[in-house]
Amino acid sequence: MADRIWRNARLATMADTGLGVIEDGLVACTDGLITYAGAAADAPPSGSADVTDCEGRWITPGLIDCHTHLIHGGNRAAEFALRLSGASYEEIARAGGGIVSTMRATREASEAELVQLALPRLDAMLAEGVTTVEVKSGYGLSLASEMKMLRAAARLEKERDVRVVRTFLGAHAVPPEFAGNADGYIDLVCGEMIPAIAREGLADAVDAFCEGIGFTPEQTARVFTAARAHGLPVKLHAEQLSALGGSSLAARNGALSADHLEYASEADVTAMAAAGTVAVLLPGAYYFMRETKLPPVAAMRKAGVVIALGTDCNPGTSPLTSPLLVLNMAATLFRMTVEEALRGMTVNAARALGLSSRIGTLKAGKACDLAIWSIDDPAELVYRIGFNPLHTRIRNGR
Amino acid sequence: MADRIWRNARLATMADTGLGVIEDGLVACTDGLITYAGAAADAPPSGSADVTDCEGRWITPGLIDCHTHLIHGGNRAAEFALRLSGASYEEIARAGGGIVSTMRATREASEAELVQLALPRLDAMLAEGVTTVEVKSGYGLSLASEMKMLRAAARLEKERDVRVVRTFLGAHAVPPEFAGNADGYIDLVCGEMIPAIAREGLADAVDAFCEGIGFTPEQTARVFTAARAHGLPVKLHAEQLSALGGSSLAARNGALSADHLEYASEADVTAMAAAGTVAVLLPGAYYFMRETKLPPVAAMRKAGVVIALGTDCNPGTSPLTSPLLVLNMAATLFRMTVEEALRGMTVNAARALGLSSRIGTLKAGKACDLAIWSIDDPAELVYRIGFNPLHTRIRNGR
Ligand SMILES: [Zn+2]
Ligand SMILES: [Zn+2]
Repeated sequence: MADRIWRNARLATMADTGLGVIEDGLVACTDGLITYAGAAADAPPSGSADVTDCEGRWITPGLIDCHTHLIHGGNRAAEFALRLSGASYEEIARAGGGIVSTMRATREASEAELVQLALPRLDAMLAEGVTTVEVKSGYGLSLASEMKMLRAAARLEKERDVRVVRTFLGAHAVPPEFAGNADGYIDLVCGEMIPAIAREGLADAVDAFCEGIGFTPEQTARVFTAARAHGLPVKLHAEQLSALGGSSLAARNGALSADHLEYASEADVTAMAAAGTVAVLLPGAYYFMRETKLPPVAAMRKAGVVIALGTDCNPGTSPLTSPLLVLNMAATLFRMTVEEALRGMTVNAARALGLSSRIGTLKAGKACDLAIWSIDDPAELVYRIGFNPLHTRIRNGR
Repeated sequence: MADRIWRNARLATMADTGLGVIEDGLVACTDGLITYAGAAADAPPSGSADVTDCEGRWITPGLIDCHTHLIHGGNRAAEFALRLSGASYEEIARAGGGIVSTMRATREASEAELVQLALPRLDAMLAEGVTTVEVKSGYGLSLASEMKMLRAAARLEKERDVRVVRTFLGAHAVPPEFAGNADGYIDLVCGEMIPAIAREGLADAVDAFCEGIGFTPEQTARVFTAARAHGLPVKLHAEQLSALGGSSLAARNGALSADHLEYASEADVTAMAAAGTVAVLLPGAYYFMRETKLPPVAAMRKAGVVIALGTDCNPGTSPLTSPLLVLNMAATLFRMTVEEALRGMTVNAARALGLSSRIGTLKAGKACDLAIWSIDDPAELVYRIGFNPLHTRIRNGR
């Protein structure tokens, strides 16, 4: 028998294709898992379950933010202000700006401080119906500080009722200690960091930043090889600023996802479709960086690439904590449809995290992670800007 | 003696130029008006006032949204979804889309219904520190329904603790009853609507939509003449989609503001600077319409045009209810500085409403409308995207 039932609801199950709309729907839950999600007329008897009348509201799967850098020290507001005032990159660097400033602040913060700094950002996401959030390391850039970041990410799960998926992004940038010696740093990432992090179970996946200002495809390939040798799935920041073929490399390595992708080529798209690598698009970074090159959404659609969305919440290029705004930006800036946007932060985001069997749709057997919305049409979630119609967030049936 | 005092605060007074930063600041209030805002060291004795310790938080003037269409029936989410799915304008028109759909829904709604529909949108703004909001009519397009909109706008002030400034925008579009006879509709606006609305004191200003798809400069000039004959200040939707010289016309008529302005010319900018007409920029509409022509911010800055910002909250071209996001868009999309953005939703927005003497700065004699923020740097209000650090909103000292 079910513990809890939500009735008199309209469902967007995200199962199969499209939104999976069920007009007179019902969701039942036992021990944190969905036992039924479908037409009320076909539901099993409710027995002694605790029944909630949703008064016609819409239920979607809880939102999934599959790409964030939620854990970090400091912010870059002063750098942002300086740049708007016309300061040059040199002046900003002299004023202590750039990723190095975030690295310093992150190294200086304790694990507990990193958690406290991240909680208001996380709370903003939860307030908009997020039930699963991915969090990357990558601002420590030493074994100890990368581990501190991953432990802080895990602590978020204790502080709030949310599922946290952790990604090791040691190959995010070359730390000052290895200036001019990126290969030496990759030796450290592959030879010490990945083995230690795998041993302690601190990460669910390994990521890297393959870019002219990051790591080469060859260095990235070494990271992937080390990750796979330790049983960790991989993903990649690829084709954000230039076309290095990182997304094809990711596809060849069976990556869960390749992320950003503004500069992805037809060949990259084909490779990702064939490998089942998810394209994670990050319109917040596109917007904040004033990028004009659009990711090849039409080609992805045509090739059957699965498209997910994330906030990319980070202090340098996407200080964004609103998943609903990501839905709007995906539509407004990338011309994704309402269905594509909503699938991008539910079923497809689950797939980008390798969690398709557990979350992302309203289906028996999945975690009972729900977002209940005071709306008349799911399109409102994508259409409105800076408006939050969340009525209730349910995580594991509670 | 003061009723209330806020101490241990950092102030961005917006008085004079820049942010008007006072590091160890204090605000005192009596009977809803600021009696002192400045350095704590120079403050008069507190007497028996109720003292709030702000613990180092920042205080700005309450935010002012000086351009909204907050009162309207229906929404255009379905039309938005259709357009993203590739529907043509004809198909959307056949499906009942466009401004006419908003007009129909607004005409059909009662005054009380319009208020109920607007409150969630207003609440989103208040949650981000708004203490004054302008609301336009313009979806009724008949005397009775325009009056209903303006009365609904006034009711918002009873339902929430906020100052509402009302603008009559009868010349927003030609209603179906006057199809092909825009001049006939302008006869009605000037001959019946403006006199009746002035007589009943339903509006604080008169606005029009001067555009190829709206009204000509000649028709607009007639509206201005009628408004001024009835003692009402004017403002104008100008140069949003094309350059008709509406902003120069507005300046010649001593308009409080000309709004949108993407297509404003050098001559328009010069005219506005000379007349003291405020440029109200609306980056939400720019973003939502995927406009690529930027308003001439550098020219405005050089000419000394006062720049304000608004959400333009409306169902067709800016379904936006976040003033903080407007600050970020002004910086990200229009390259306005942090100071310009923050002045744009405080002191300069007050000027766009003709309320400079009453609101917009932290200064003795002004209304004690405050926004108290949990931030370390005012730049954070502009830098973050989809994050609300408001701690407390104070209106008239309460
Ligand atoms: Zn990233
Ligand atoms: Zn408008």
